[in-house]
Amino acid sequence: MVNLKEDERLDYLLAENLRIIQSPSVFAFSLDAVLLARFVYVPIQKGNLLDLCSGNGVIPLFLSARTKGQITGVEIQERLYDMAVRSIAYNGLENRLQMVHGDIKEMAKRLGYGKFDVITCNPPYFTTPKAGEINPNEHLAIARHEILCTLEDAIKASSDLVRQGGKVAFVHRPGRLIDLITLMRKYRLEPKRIQFVYPKIGKEANTLLVEAIKDGSPDLKILPPIIVYDENDEYTQEIRAILYGE
Amino acid sequence: MVNLKEDERLDYLLAENLRIIQSPSVFAFSLDAVLLARFVYVPIQKGNLLDLCSGNGVIPLFLSARTKGQITGVEIQERLYDMAVRSIAYNGLENRLQMVHGDIKEMAKRLGYGKFDVITCNPPYFTTPKAGEINPNEHLAIARHEILCTLEDAIKASSDLVRQGGKVAFVHRPGRLIDLITLMRKYRLEPKRIQFVYPKIGKEANTLLVEAIKDGSPDLKILPPIIVYDENDEYTQEIRAILYGE
Repeated sequence: MVNLKEDERLDYLLAENLRIIQSPSVFAFSLDAVLLARFVYVPIQKGNLLDLCSGNGVIPLFLSARTKGQITGVEIQERLYDMAVRSIAYNGLENRLQMVHGDIKEMAKRLGYGKFDVITCNPPYFTTPKAGEINPNEHLAIARHEILCTLEDAIKASSDLVRQGGKVAFVHRPGRLIDLITLMRKYRLEPKRIQFVYPKIGKEANTLLVEAIKDGSPDLKILPPIIVYDENDEYTQEIRAILYGE
Repeated sequence: MVNLKEDERLDYLLAENLRIIQSPSVFAFSLDAVLLARFVYVPIQKGNLLDLCSGNGVIPLFLSARTKGQITGVEIQERLYDMAVRSIAYNGLENRLQMVHGDIKEMAKRLGYGKFDVITCNPPYFTTPKAGEINPNEHLAIARHEILCTLEDAIKASSDLVRQGGKVAFVHRPGRLIDLITLMRKYRLEPKRIQFVYPKIGKEANTLLVEAIKDGSPDLKILPPIIVYDENDEYTQEIRAILYGE
């Protein structure tokens, strides 16, 4: 049984055999979230994982298929937080997944400094535009623009919340690579693995995955390229495996 | 007529229809130099181009096929400088290519601050190892290790020599990405285009190309991936076109 509100639908996470509540007018997850959940290092048997800017809880749900550890998601928008709570319940994962409704800037005080082994974040991508350019849909505007949470807020919060030697993974646009690297170093997060996602061979990268270690030593690897579409504009085998478990 | 010394040979630059003096025991150019010469923005009709850490002059020779401008190469090792001078003469390019024998750290004083439109550099890749680990071949050691020229030396020299709005392009290992970006910003070179070279689909990148603009505004693009070998371990069409003009 699930209680769907307004235009919500119950979508499948096929490869994980889970379901998730989404809404086109409020929040629907993107391929970026899927890629981040797969990219990040995850301890298999136990551990304390945290997802910031969690939206409808998509990353915690994906991560639950990769670890038996405890996963916490943080979301500031009550409407999205509520969707995540209902999805977790629908999948019967309340014993391992919990959602927190609140501002990531206050989470270190609420949840504890240095308490997490792994932190993920798919933050708003766009710097705050002029008033007239903001999406009139408040839910989408907050999820997409740095209105309630800047990139620096998210990186500082991650650094406060992760333990020394713990991992912090972000997904973002390649245009923010330099900001990401500079801010991570500012907050003692040393980038160790970066992976670029190219929509197609011959196209510029449109997504960037980065994983850093708190107080890690400098030693960066650029992982193999992820190519999303093949020459026939169909998903590559790699993406089909991620999305559909094929 | 060409005067070849010791184990030197006269190799072909096929796509450019040029020839170059090389020596396995002193210096032979790598694919990285070829990729940098092709990657960098080049004015076609005129301009003042400079190549630092020029070795046997491979990048100036490649660039001569892309521009009618003036190209200067700087090399600190007299033996390599001498090879470059003879290659330029053999190809009859003395009117557009000149070599300078000296230390890049002194070039702004010798050649002038802000006098160049484009600067390229394929610097030594490895930080200086302990004495026992240095290549006993002095020529190869200086070309490969930061003995006479650190990455910061090369970036500072580039920033001093390039005009405002001019381009600076480096090739390096991906492991130095963060150093490169941090040092470039320190010396007012804003990275605008980065391209990663992957030996094969499914492999980590092993080369990084970056182009910055002096006092440019932040706006970074990650160009399409370059894949060197196909699934049969043969050069991809893209690389064959670069190397052989096919």
